Amino acid sequence: MKKVVLGFSGGLDTSYCVKYLTEEKGYEVHSVIVNTGGFTEEELVEIEKRAYNLGVKSHKAVNTVHSYYDNVIKYLVFGNVLKNNTYPLSVSAERMSQAIAIAEHVKEVGATAVAHGSTGAGNDQVRFDMIFHIMIPGVEIITPIRDLKLSREEEISYLKGKGVQMNFEKAAYSINKGIWGTSVGGKETLNSNGFLPEEAWPTQLSRTDAEQVKLHFGKGELTGVNDKTFAHPTDAIQYLQTLAGPFAIGRDIHVGDTIIGIKGRVGFEAAAPVVIIKAHHALEKHVLTKWQLSWKDQLSQFYGNWLHEGQIMDPVMRDIEAYLQNSQQHVTGDVFVTLQPYRFQVTGIESVYDLMSSKFGKYGEMNNGWSGEDVRGFSKIFGNQTMIWHQVSESAK
Amino acid sequence: MKKVVLGFSGGLDTSYCVKYLTEEKGYEVHSVIVNTGGFTEEELVEIEKRAYNLGVKSHKAVNTVHSYYDNVIKYLVFGNVLKNNTYPLSVSAERMSQAIAIAEHVKEVGATAVAHGSTGAGNDQVRFDMIFHIMIPGVEIITPIRDLKLSREEEISYLKGKGVQMNFEKAAYSINKGIWGTSVGGKETLNSNGFLPEEAWPTQLSRTDAEQVKLHFGKGELTGVNDKTFAHPTDAIQYLQTLAGPFAIGRDIHVGDTIIGIKGRVGFEAAAPVVIIKAHHALEKHVLTKWQLSWKDQLSQFYGNWLHEGQIMDPVMRDIEAYLQNSQQHVTGDVFVTLQPYRFQVTGIESVYDLMSSKFGKYGEMNNGWSGEDVRGFSKIFGNQTMIWHQVSESAK
Amino acid sequence: MKKVVLGFSGGLDTSYCVKYLTEEKGYEVHSVIVNTGGFTEEELVEIEKRAYNLGVKSHKAVNTVHSYYDNVIKYLVFGNVLKNNTYPLSVSAERMSQAIAIAEHVKEVGATAVAHGSTGAGNDQVRFDMIFHIMIPGVEIITPIRDLKLSREEEISYLKGKGVQMNFEKAAYSINKGIWGTSVGGKETLNSNGFLPEEAWPTQLSRTDAEQVKLHFGKGELTGVNDKTFAHPTDAIQYLQTLAGPFAIGRDIHVGDTIIGIKGRVGFEAAAPVVIIKAHHALEKHVLTKWQLSWKDQLSQFYGNWLHEGQIMDPVMRDIEAYLQNSQQHVTGDVFVTLQPYRFQVTGIESVYDLMSSKFGKYGEMNNGWSGEDVRGFSKIFGNQTMIWHQVSESAK
Amino acid sequence: MKKVVLGFSGGLDTSYCVKYLTEEKGYEVHSVIVNTGGFTEEELVEIEKRAYNLGVKSHKAVNTVHSYYDNVIKYLVFGNVLKNNTYPLSVSAERMSQAIAIAEHVKEVGATAVAHGSTGAGNDQVRFDMIFHIMIPGVEIITPIRDLKLSREEEISYLKGKGVQMNFEKAAYSINKGIWGTSVGGKETLNSNGFLPEEAWPTQLSRTDAEQVKLHFGKGELTGVNDKTFAHPTDAIQYLQTLAGPFAIGRDIHVGDTIIGIKGRVGFEAAAPVVIIKAHHALEKHVLTKWQLSWKDQLSQFYGNWLHEGQIMDPVMRDIEAYLQNSQQHVTGDVFVTLQPYRFQVTGIESVYDLMSSKFGKYGEMNNGWSGEDVRGFSKIFGNQTMIWHQVSESAK
Repeated sequence: MKKVVLGFSGGLDTSYCVKYLTEEKGYEVHSVIVNTGGFTEEELVEIEKRAYNLGVKSHKAVNTVHSYYDNVIKYLVFGNVLKNNTYPLSVSAERMSQAIAIAEHVKEVGATAVAHGSTGAGNDQVRFDMIFHIMIPGVEIITPIRDLKLSREEEISYLKGKGVQMNFEKAAYSINKGIWGTSVGGKETLNSNGFLPEEAWPTQLSRTDAEQVKLHFGKGELTGVNDKTFAHPTDAIQYLQTLAGPFAIGRDIHVGDTIIGIKGRVGFEAAAPVVIIKAHHALEKHVLTKWQLSWKDQLSQFYGNWLHEGQIMDPVMRDIEAYLQNSQQHVTGDVFVTLQPYRFQVTGIESVYDLMSSKFGKYGEMNNGWSGEDVRGFSKIFGNQTMIWHQVSESAK
Repeated sequence: MKKVVLGFSGGLDTSYCVKYLTEEKGYEVHSVIVNTGGFTEEELVEIEKRAYNLGVKSHKAVNTVHSYYDNVIKYLVFGNVLKNNTYPLSVSAERMSQAIAIAEHVKEVGATAVAHGSTGAGNDQVRFDMIFHIMIPGVEIITPIRDLKLSREEEISYLKGKGVQMNFEKAAYSINKGIWGTSVGGKETLNSNGFLPEEAWPTQLSRTDAEQVKLHFGKGELTGVNDKTFAHPTDAIQYLQTLAGPFAIGRDIHVGDTIIGIKGRVGFEAAAPVVIIKAHHALEKHVLTKWQLSWKDQLSQFYGNWLHEGQIMDPVMRDIEAYLQNSQQHVTGDVFVTLQPYRFQVTGIESVYDLMSSKFGKYGEMNNGWSGEDVRGFSKIFGNQTMIWHQVSESAK
Repeated sequence: MKKVVLGFSGGLDTSYCVKYLTEEKGYEVHSVIVNTGGFTEEELVEIEKRAYNLGVKSHKAVNTVHSYYDNVIKYLVFGNVLKNNTYPLSVSAERMSQAIAIAEHVKEVGATAVAHGSTGAGNDQVRFDMIFHIMIPGVEIITPIRDLKLSREEEISYLKGKGVQMNFEKAAYSINKGIWGTSVGGKETLNSNGFLPEEAWPTQLSRTDAEQVKLHFGKGELTGVNDKTFAHPTDAIQYLQTLAGPFAIGRDIHVGDTIIGIKGRVGFEAAAPVVIIKAHHALEKHVLTKWQLSWKDQLSQFYGNWLHEGQIMDPVMRDIEAYLQNSQQHVTGDVFVTLQPYRFQVTGIESVYDLMSSKFGKYGEMNNGWSGEDVRGFSKIFGNQTMIWHQVSESAK
Repeated sequence: MKKVVLGFSGGLDTSYCVKYLTEEKGYEVHSVIVNTGGFTEEELVEIEKRAYNLGVKSHKAVNTVHSYYDNVIKYLVFGNVLKNNTYPLSVSAERMSQAIAIAEHVKEVGATAVAHGSTGAGNDQVRFDMIFHIMIPGVEIITPIRDLKLSREEEISYLKGKGVQMNFEKAAYSINKGIWGTSVGGKETLNSNGFLPEEAWPTQLSRTDAEQVKLHFGKGELTGVNDKTFAHPTDAIQYLQTLAGPFAIGRDIHVGDTIIGIKGRVGFEAAAPVVIIKAHHALEKHVLTKWQLSWKDQLSQFYGNWLHEGQIMDPVMRDIEAYLQNSQQHVTGDVFVTLQPYRFQVTGIESVYDLMSSKFGKYGEMNNGWSGEDVRGFSKIFGNQTMIWHQVSESAK
């Protein structure tokens, strides 16, 4: 019997896919769910139950939190990646991790087809398609929802006809949760104007005071929070989330270019990711040279965009990662952050690599490292070419 | 008698310069103060009085608010320029405007020397030196404070000896105010760790509610706020400041590279500039194509850094301005912003040039512009090279 | 009767298209050929005759040499564009010009379909498809050769069956000629190793001496050659081609990335384009500042690549053109070039905007513009941050 | 007695320095010459003799050919670095190597001063000054020629007065030779117009036939030429030079920006470097992806410029080197080059990593990897945003 591996979330679309692939297409369906930090154990048990009820041959839950961090998130932190200066790429990044895990499951199961529940209107279809083309070329890609252009109502009607019982009610806001943030879509994000209402955010404000936290970075990675150290940076991220989440920090709406050329808008909350990136960047401003900062920015912007477009397997990404890794050798130290309702403030840093060392002269105060005469000479030479240009212009008139 | 033009602020350093240039160096001193939006009429009258009391031959106040906007701020808005992703270049930008006005005054007065009160430890000395080298080559540049390495106490003692009476008390925080923001330096900013206390900020929080404002941009320039229109964009900026300032918005600490290679840290408050830049950027995300956004970012980052380093007269700046100007043709529309204590949120935009038009398909919903089959083909071709790379790698093993 | 506009070259593929569209699809065929400088009047007359013989309803020859220059070539010169540091984009650039002219003909004729003879293996299909999607959305795009996957033999057999008489012999090398160069493909270019034999090149070496030529540029455009001036820069290009062509200059093989992800290799000869670009660049090195040169390079590389990928209508291209246009204000002067068999050498320039003016000090000789002390100060400050970095590194050990 | 280390070349300037430092300044002079591949053993012996005759306390010849390659040249090859698209940075690169070796000698000798013979008009003074500031901060830098603004005649007169006998005649062309090329300066390069005459070139044409050579690269480094393999890549470079030199290949004039802002012009011959870079680049075009090529270009251009400006010790250079190193993993294979009088042609490559593999479809020929329908879909989506932009523009009118 032909085997297909199906990325399964337990929602309407992928539930439809199980039935459709089994009964209309005659496939043996092997479902897989990839947990990037957004599912509880209880939710995973519930989803597994649902899969078997729908008739899958096998179901597997893969936890990629560590590999997701090691292969993706780490570099997003190194690069201070916020797409369009806003969005930590919460969904874009985890889709890559999920697609790779699904492709690996296809190899394990020995399937000849792979299916995903993406529609024809978003980024995810391209991300899944591409990773599958690259990692498992020749394996057929089946996308029932995209191909059949089914409406929600048609799917429900089909499933009911098959005797499936599940909650068919549509949530007012669609949520996608992972360790690097949660996206929130709803009627306000379908148009260019309008912000999500308070009740739409998964994490509600529950603290109205302020809290100081100290983040410790070791070679660019978050390794400690206050006095705690952690076995893996993902533990540090999750612990910071418990501190920052209750302040309802890191909410915003991202407007961006989809891979397919249209503009899209999506809300997100990402307390820990946003605090980490801003704190990491603050530390870098103290320990990296001017051109280190400048080139990191350019490469990281491209890295984030290319990741967003699903191109994580382009070897240029490995080259950039080598750059970013090398750049972090001095990014070690503590960053101090004040958390407050809906906002936070980086208040300072401490690092043995701090280039703002008082030994070398303080900004705005006289010093011993150089003389006024030196700067006078510097200014003359530094402006030399422009001076010549203006004199040449003048005399050419 | 030899004439010198002196950039005069009325503070201790430039007061010292008047006396020193007159009495020790035998110059006829022509003082000039350049108002970039930070001085009131009363303050200017007071400063003029002080100049004549110190013995200047002439004193002039030049208002460059319009030319400062037309030649500099406009492009900082077009480019969404926030240095190190934080600082609107409040001081860096206005120094250029001031240096140019002083150089022009040198030509008018026919002076053979120009003096500025910069120390040897900051950015300003380089900015002034360079503009003078370029615009008035051959004119001697005199910098008493830098050259004599005087302490505050020595200056005071000298002035007292000359019978000068003024307030010699040192303010706890040094302030520099212009239309594009106010910088605040104090003991907390001399080290890498520490945030300015509430009382250090010139503008105190006086509103604790929320207010919705609508900003209208015309080809990238702020031309209206709510239902008001303005004779010049600087009027719009100043009006917005009256709305946003009381919310204590736009405060932060900038850590950055000085022109002379050391790291510096400075606080700033810039309510209107920060709101304008974030609103302008939000509008651009809706009306510009992906690569328009990307290249603008790269060019603008360089533009901001090069301006910061005093290189406004390099013709490359004109080339970038031509780029930025051309990029703004569709940056027209309204941006909606909610002001709240210490923070603000862009909540949406409206523009006839909005590319997120529902006519062309909504993100996440099915559409008529293309089929799932089209995207399937796209994904295949879009990942083609990386697929080939991985197969070649595999077969080379 | 349904009308289709067909891009017609008179070759086998597009001859097949005429018959196929007319007889199998029932279309009234309106053929159009776009001359970008590669066809003689005689060839055009011959092609027109062939079109009518095949049964087209109307045939039009459009000469786009001037608009091609004004909209594309001009900017390739401004940007010194050589793709992968080799190829003047001879074919890539003219395809854009042709596609636009065809789309405009579709509007004029009022056709509901447009056809091109591209196969499914190259860049041109994407270029034509995209321009048509953008300029004439809704018009059906018909690509018989791509869709039917026809072999050469099948096409010939079909045409013979229809009684068509033409030269069905395949040339050993396929040639594409336009004002900005001629591409040459053959068996050597289908593999990674092998150079085109002497006889494959359309222009044969006929001069073995040397000739000095003087190129005059006015704001970046070639306006004179030796003592001749020209009505339009394209006349200057064509005249220079008559001088440089006989030296067999500008031959090379380009290896590059196609839009569809595979690597391709193609020979080209482009005597005038390559001489112009190298001469123009030499002049720029003398009249532009360091950062003008640097940013032009980056933008132009992108411009060339994006043009190659068919994206000429992305508004980012207009922004870059505004930049390039502005950068050319001082690119005026003479460039001296020696032409020799198979090679040429730029030997110098003369320009009133030359920044290498002896007034400001000669490289390697002492001067009066600045002192050794100034450079000593410059060196200290210029290396300040790196010095601090190394001391901090040392003390952190 | 105070010790000074002097970079000594045996020429007029540094001979003057020995006498001046010894007799006028009372220093014990320790001379050092750094051989970057340009000196023969005989020349070094001769220079040593001259040093002791002039009265140095010690003299040392340091051979840095290997470290120069390992730390600098390797990355110039990886990056295909040709400054302003012309110059392999022959002198700029070796100055760094020399300055570092001199600074290390200062530490060994325990000197309190270091001297170099640079004038105040070129790049070298900045390079030496900066490396010394960074590597041996606090050590006094003495530059007699720059500080005393001596003319050639004054130096000769001084040395003659001290009884020094040497060849005081000025060569018509000044030559600087190293493994990465030889610079040639003369009266033609002091102006913007004029090419060096045949006799000025150190290597004269001695072969008028043609020769095919095969270069083997292993992870980006030249490891073999024809059937020879080498103990170190510098041996391969020097062997290739013996093949290519007699063809008088790699001659040109470089026009560029000096660190001090003026424009400079210098001839150079660099047969092996230029052949290696072009061959290496050709191989990369076959084995790297589009974006790998693009980012390498940008980073390498900066790398070359920053090296040229003496900033090799900025840690950003290490970051870029990490990038370049990582990018070379597939740059393995053979490149075929034809050497001819005054020119050469890369004719092809062979590599197991070649992405232009016929398995994946040949450019211009039909293939099995994808269908025409796929490309049709690709074109639609690839042009989607620009299509929307034009429709929005149209409807906004």
